[in-house]
Amino acid sequence: MTDRLAGVAVVAHGGGPTPVINASLAGVIEECRRHPQITALYGARYGILGVIEEQFLDLYRQDAALVSLIGRAPGSALGSCRHKVSAADYERILTVFRAHNIRYFLYNGGNDSMDTAFRVSQLARHCNYELRVIGIPKTVDNDLPETDHCPGYGSAARYFACAVRDVGADLRALPRRVSVVEGMGRNAGWLVASSLLARREPDDPPHLIYCPERPLSADQVLADVEAVYRRLHYAVLTVSESQKDDKGGTFGADLMAPDGFQHSMAGNLGHALSNLITKHLKLRARSEKPGLLGRAAAGFVSETDWEEARLCGQVAVQAAVQGVTDKMVTLVREPGPAYRSTTGLTDLEKVANAERHLPPEWINAAGNDVLEAFREYATPLTGQIEPLPRLDQVLIPRRAFQV
Amino acid sequence: MTDRLAGVAVVAHGGGPTPVINASLAGVIEECRRHPQITALYGARYGILGVIEEQFLDLYRQDAALVSLIGRAPGSALGSCRHKVSAADYERILTVFRAHNIRYFLYNGGNDSMDTAFRVSQLARHCNYELRVIGIPKTVDNDLPETDHCPGYGSAARYFACAVRDVGADLRALPRRVSVVEGMGRNAGWLVASSLLARREPDDPPHLIYCPERPLSADQVLADVEAVYRRLHYAVLTVSESQKDDKGGTFGADLMAPDGFQHSMAGNLGHALSNLITKHLKLRARSEKPGLLGRAAAGFVSETDWEEARLCGQVAVQAAVQGVTDKMVTLVREPGPAYRSTTGLTDLEKVANAERHLPPEWINAAGNDVLEAFREYATPLTGQIEPLPRLDQVLIPRRAFQV
Repeated sequence: MTDRLAGVAVVAHGGGPTPVINASLAGVIEECRRHPQITALYGARYGILGVIEEQFLDLYRQDAALVSLIGRAPGSALGSCRHKVSAADYERILTVFRAHNIRYFLYNGGNDSMDTAFRVSQLARHCNYELRVIGIPKTVDNDLPETDHCPGYGSAARYFACAVRDVGADLRALPRRVSVVEGMGRNAGWLVASSLLARREPDDPPHLIYCPERPLSADQVLADVEAVYRRLHYAVLTVSESQKDDKGGTFGADLMAPDGFQHSMAGNLGHALSNLITKHLKLRARSEKPGLLGRAAAGFVSETDWEEARLCGQVAVQAAVQGVTDKMVTLVREPGPAYRSTTGLTDLEKVANAERHLPPEWINAAGNDVLEAFREYATPLTGQIEPLPRLDQVLIPRRAFQV
Repeated sequence: MTDRLAGVAVVAHGGGPTPVINASLAGVIEECRRHPQITALYGARYGILGVIEEQFLDLYRQDAALVSLIGRAPGSALGSCRHKVSAADYERILTVFRAHNIRYFLYNGGNDSMDTAFRVSQLARHCNYELRVIGIPKTVDNDLPETDHCPGYGSAARYFACAVRDVGADLRALPRRVSVVEGMGRNAGWLVASSLLARREPDDPPHLIYCPERPLSADQVLADVEAVYRRLHYAVLTVSESQKDDKGGTFGADLMAPDGFQHSMAGNLGHALSNLITKHLKLRARSEKPGLLGRAAAGFVSETDWEEARLCGQVAVQAAVQGVTDKMVTLVREPGPAYRSTTGLTDLEKVANAERHLPPEWINAAGNDVLEAFREYATPLTGQIEPLPRLDQVLIPRRAFQV
């Protein structure tokens, strides 16, 4: 039964955009329009800051064709932020909610955002203000617990796998080089692991995949690269921007200024590793750092990811109008040989600030590769990464050597 | 009249691959098959090294459907190299040519490769060995003289413009950041200039475009970024990996080991600039370095570029069978409002080791932007770079401030 709490809904984005965060937004807009008790739908400009500063767009007034186009665009159409909400901010949020009769709060973000959503809900309850708070998952890092995977991951993983395949084609064509391709990922190896999908034959790039779940010594990287290079005359390795060395350092890379949540990261880890390789192995090494392109590139959206992102937006609204609160939508993988997902709900509290890592059993013993179980997990989420065609390699018999 | 010199043709790739170098290869294979005097077509493995070491693939034996697929793939299907050919190597090349009755040499490369092709031809003439040598242009840098533009450039420029558009969407969505997007380009600004195509409205990213034709002071970068940031609360700048500072240095970036032709380049110039911005302006800056993806990304081929690359391969064969030698195929832009190109021929000697730079009049007086004349030049080559849609930005009136 629908509990007809009439009022305004607010949708906001938290943290970094994903290639499909706007698909969730489109899903929210479409679904809210179906529920008359949602009297208006506001989009907060720049995440929770838009709530605090009362910067709202009227999303019912947006043209449906435009919303549909925006659902396919990268970035966040609303804008987002990485603002650590203070006690005074929480009070202010409730004041704004009261002033606009906002009764539904749909927060589309990662674990920091789910913590914020949970605290907003707690304060509203404490103040006897009826509010329904639902989290919509979003992270290219795929590190939210309680869900099989996160909207945004499949597309970012598709991007990274295609990038490594293409860089690999360049190195295979012009060998005697080493490339370190740096992927995103705050602490978890889900994204860097996706480079496995670029490899079809055993000697295809990437030859080495390092997941940040395992600390890595410079000595291991050098020994691994040397062994690959000796065999194939080139090497492509993938590494996460958050990889730590065995002393907890960053291989000499520069640390960037921390964000609002005090997450600090190296800014040039791939370059630092390529310098190490050049220096110690005397090989021609370089690094590629697609960086933000890993979550912003418009051309690599996975259709499954896009559909699921939209569905999560729709389901969040459906749950809220049915009286649910303090939950985050999850994606559930149904058993069976063909991939099929449904949605579920989990407590915001369980997701807030928690991180899910790559299962240790998906990383090989040497810590320089990802196992086939990961491929089975990830391929339905990214879609097939098509291998590149190659010429038939039968050589013409030599003549000049007999001249 | 066709001069029916019967013999084997060799096609080889020199220097870095482009997204369409295999389209030229497909054009060569298709066209050679039409001329019975070309008794066999050999593909040299790894460029001129494949000739020296007699590593040849029989390209007539390759399946036509596979060749067609390969024509769409990035990398070089034959393999390439950056080998500085020695006097002994040139002798060896001629020995190999004689041993296989190779009478046609089609060399697909940039200015270093055209120099090699010219010297091979000179030596053959000196030794009274009848040989037809035709260059097929190829460079993402677009820096070959005598041609309106080079196969490979349109696609690499399309990649870079799309990358900057997408990174720009990320920063606009999550502002209070600066991103330095590093583009390829050995000395010329053609590629970094292409980021102009990502900008439709005056305040769209990229806000600053630096071309390596102009030395750049750290002070100017800092003043430029500060002015943009103050106005827009974020800034996206594009810079070439080969940008020099006003002291001839690289803003503190590391120099990489030189290649076979002694071209040396900074390995982390964008990162060095982002460090400067963080340090002096106290802004949150980062860098993206798609690096090799700029010439290897499979998904950004410009159809015009692809067609022209294939055509250059075909025309090279046609010229050779007609008795032409010591020429490189050029692309000629026909006058008129609609874009149309034809091909021409120029002397290899004029192209060998020469570089064409961005015309100074296409760079603004301040040296931090590219002018609209460049857009007219480049857009037909890249195809349209579609702008990303945006929500209507009309805000809901505030209420809570009156509570």
